[in-house]
Amino acid sequence: MTDRTVTIDIRRDLFGANEDAAKINAAEFKKHDIHAFDIMGSVGTGKTLLIESLCERLSARYRILMVAGDLATRIDADRVESHGIDTVQINTGSACHLDARMVRLALKNVDLSKYQVAFIENVGNLICPAGYSLGVDKKIVVLSITEGPYMVRKHPLTIKRADIIVINKIDLADVLDFDVEVLVKDVREVDALLPVYKVSSKTGQGIDDLIRGLGL
Amino acid sequence: MTDRTVTIDIRRDLFGANEDAAKINAAEFKKHDIHAFDIMGSVGTGKTLLIESLCERLSARYRILMVAGDLATRIDADRVESHGIDTVQINTGSACHLDARMVRLALKNVDLSKYQVAFIENVGNLICPAGYSLGVDKKIVVLSITEGPYMVRKHPLTIKRADIIVINKIDLADVLDFDVEVLVKDVREVDALLPVYKVSSKTGQGIDDLIRGLGL
Repeated sequence: MTDRTVTIDIRRDLFGANEDAAKINAAEFKKHDIHAFDIMGSVGTGKTLLIESLCERLSARYRILMVAGDLATRIDADRVESHGIDTVQINTGSACHLDARMVRLALKNVDLSKYQVAFIENVGNLICPAGYSLGVDKKIVVLSITEGPYMVRKHPLTIKRADIIVINKIDLADVLDFDVEVLVKDVREVDALLPVYKVSSKTGQGIDDLIRGLGL
Repeated sequence: MTDRTVTIDIRRDLFGANEDAAKINAAEFKKHDIHAFDIMGSVGTGKTLLIESLCERLSARYRILMVAGDLATRIDADRVESHGIDTVQINTGSACHLDARMVRLALKNVDLSKYQVAFIENVGNLICPAGYSLGVDKKIVVLSITEGPYMVRKHPLTIKRADIIVINKIDLADVLDFDVEVLVKDVREVDALLPVYKVSSKTGQGIDDLIRGLGL
């Protein structure tokens, strides 16, 4: 080590800068009275279809913006846009999560005064996004019963940092011979008060309850 | 900036050190004639059941070691151990992937001369593990048809870095009305020569073909 070498606390630096940007995003959302949600979950848990399902029910009452995070492609944004919803795509390249600065940059050229609700679909990943605040009102973690019974027990930190848990694809419970209550019980053990919604974005089951849970 | 501040290429530093450790692991595996496989895939794609299914068919012919990577718990290792397979657990805490140094440390107290095959189950994540070599013979990426049709298109880098693609849970294709060939076609577009195996770890379909593909 030369005396030009300094030790940098990378973690603190990364997360510190992110928290600052998250506060700016939160202030922007508040200024425009926007209810903002960060929707997290592994790949293929049905985050996009959930947003489509929410937009179908909400677009008559709210003007909605969807921000789509993905490594590559704008497949999800296009799907939501087909419902007449405005979308912004963030492609992260190889980054496994959105951060507050990406969201800030993406919103720079958006006229936020046009919107009342913002759904931010995070990169499909159950681990990385949980560590980065985006400045939203509520962090929603989407689990799918197709992922098996251990999702909660294996990801206690992600669950702890969530404000709402959505258990999706419950229409497949019979076919998969899956006991949804196992996941609910595991969530209760991590946080007894965390709201859990059992839904099927495909059939619409449970979506109205979730909407009430979002305060919309 | 003071003159005590230096710019560090974190990426290069992190990946460089990992490559060095991966070479040491590779040399160790080679020294003991061990066929080593890094099994990657998102949470709930059935990596553990795939390893259980492989072990069932291979344990009469090979002495097998399973290394299980997870944020928390040793659920997966216990499942594989119940088949009489030796296991080592690595809990990464909040890290979204294994790296070569974790594997090196985990194998430090293992007598590798006892084994001929090593299955390393990476942390359940389709994005992060792809960037880190562990020193194995082959990187296997497991996709599940329950994750929907966009897995390949959304993760071109992960697919490019794989040696073998396994499409799992094909027994659910009818129930989910899912066309498995869509995924195969997308893989072909990323890499026309990449071997793709369509399997069901649950029913055993395709597992013998996969075993031949692993050279076992």
